[in-house]
Amino acid sequence: MGEAAVLIGVDWGNSNLRAYRFGADGRLIERRAAPAGVHAASRGGFEAALAEAVRGWIGPPILLCGAIGSREGWREAPYVPCPAGEMEIAAALTPLSTELGRAWIVPGVSAMTRERAETMRGEETKAAALLAEGFEGVMVSPGTHAKWVRLQGGRITGLRSFMTGELFAVLQDHSLLGALVQPGPHDAAAFELGVQRALTDPAVTSLLLTARAEALLGRMAAAAIPSYLSGLLIGAEVAGGLADLDPGTPIAVVGSPGLTPLLTRALALAGRADAAAREGEAALAAGLWRLGRGLTQIM
Amino acid sequence: MGEAAVLIGVDWGNSNLRAYRFGADGRLIERRAAPAGVHAASRGGFEAALAEAVRGWIGPPILLCGAIGSREGWREAPYVPCPAGEMEIAAALTPLSTELGRAWIVPGVSAMTRERAETMRGEETKAAALLAEGFEGVMVSPGTHAKWVRLQGGRITGLRSFMTGELFAVLQDHSLLGALVQPGPHDAAAFELGVQRALTDPAVTSLLLTARAEALLGRMAAAAIPSYLSGLLIGAEVAGGLADLDPGTPIAVVGSPGLTPLLTRALALAGRADAAAREGEAALAAGLWRLGRGLTQIM
Repeated sequence: MGEAAVLIGVDWGNSNLRAYRFGADGRLIERRAAPAGVHAASRGGFEAALAEAVRGWIGPPILLCGAIGSREGWREAPYVPCPAGEMEIAAALTPLSTELGRAWIVPGVSAMTRERAETMRGEETKAAALLAEGFEGVMVSPGTHAKWVRLQGGRITGLRSFMTGELFAVLQDHSLLGALVQPGPHDAAAFELGVQRALTDPAVTSLLLTARAEALLGRMAAAAIPSYLSGLLIGAEVAGGLADLDPGTPIAVVGSPGLTPLLTRALALAGRADAAAREGEAALAAGLWRLGRGLTQIM
Repeated sequence: MGEAAVLIGVDWGNSNLRAYRFGADGRLIERRAAPAGVHAASRGGFEAALAEAVRGWIGPPILLCGAIGSREGWREAPYVPCPAGEMEIAAALTPLSTELGRAWIVPGVSAMTRERAETMRGEETKAAALLAEGFEGVMVSPGTHAKWVRLQGGRITGLRSFMTGELFAVLQDHSLLGALVQPGPHDAAAFELGVQRALTDPAVTSLLLTARAEALLGRMAAAAIPSYLSGLLIGAEVAGGLADLDPGTPIAVVGSPGLTPLLTRALALAGRADAAAREGEAALAAGLWRLGRGLTQIM
């Protein structure tokens, strides 16, 4: 049987599911990953997908976070408005009815201002890990819908989303740019050119088309275009994110090994070489423990 | 037989073909439109599509402009670099070998700076009409790849492209935003909210996601989202276009009856209620005559 588990944490996004089995004090006993994201799982049933993911683990309470709590997920877990700290989020866990045991879904967090409505799901859990460490500043979570999350006084106080990853994908797969693009290895020079241009010129809907013109006029190799596009979109994100910050606000990039270095490089080009890089999956697991440890008391 | 024609002009874009039959002095005798754009025509053969479009008109020289001169078109007509006036463009007409008579393709125009590579095809022909009238300032051509074309001293001196229409289409058809969108009539309030936000905040890749949040949080009806997205993208275009201009530079919006009012409204919200609105198709036909009238001398 091995070490007794006291909590199962599940990071269940649109594309992937990652499950963590925690022992006492949050020690990670075992982890699993499956391509059973919300989109795929919704077809075969969420309960079956979760049963498969936690096979042999049944017993401890289960805490799920991410898109599984969205309207398209298993059960909608209403957003907690900013400012939201660990206490506000943990108090709003949404119970889930399942044969697999007692289960809850972490709520997303919303930030509504007169100018903008913003929401996130999953990133609040990563933020909980940083808050637990006393981090104050901005957590940057790169990805499909990148988030810049403001952490102040132990709570999430604001957030801003950028469509960086999704635009990168739809432009390559569904726009006229796609016809010109060839897959290629990361081209650091093209990436940095894109970042620099986006940092100095806010008209990104115009800059995106320069990828087409650069290729048509033979100034850039087709295999370099994806890196250039990535640079433009990440550069636009960094320009927009930094515009909201006081100079010197601490920045932690908390993402995947593929994306985090791109963000830290773009931040360095914008004069923020001091931004810290953190492993996103580790932060997410730590956040699940942090938000779920109260559940272990009610076994 | 009716009036003798001296020139056939064809505006051949990716989606549509429009043909014009000109009499002496550029009088328009007849016009036709067909959904035989370059994408569709490339499958059945360009010559067959053109033969169908100009059936019964054969005889006068034929001048084609638009995507038909692109790499994916019938024959590539190399770009003429800026500065380019009527003389430079007319001198670079690319002859086309066809059984249908003597034919030429209007070259596109390119503008290469250290910061940007820009190209256009088709808009140079609309610009030729404005140049012939002595217009100086900026011609705004709304659409899939909107163009802001600088006209100075009788020549095209610069241009900037915006991915406005294509982004609008791919976001609705292929992004997560699309799942939230319902078709609806133009919603002027949502459009203007989008324009205002994009005029005051350059982070458009972030603002686009507010469409999702506004819908998820119930602050905006799903049927209003397309108008809001349109406002964000056109607002970003107007902000980017105006940033390059001296205040008071004359602006002429030269587009379709569907898009031109959206651009002039966004320009008015940006303080440029003085922008003129021109019918794009009429300008294009006038430009074809202007660039092609020299061909009538060599019949």
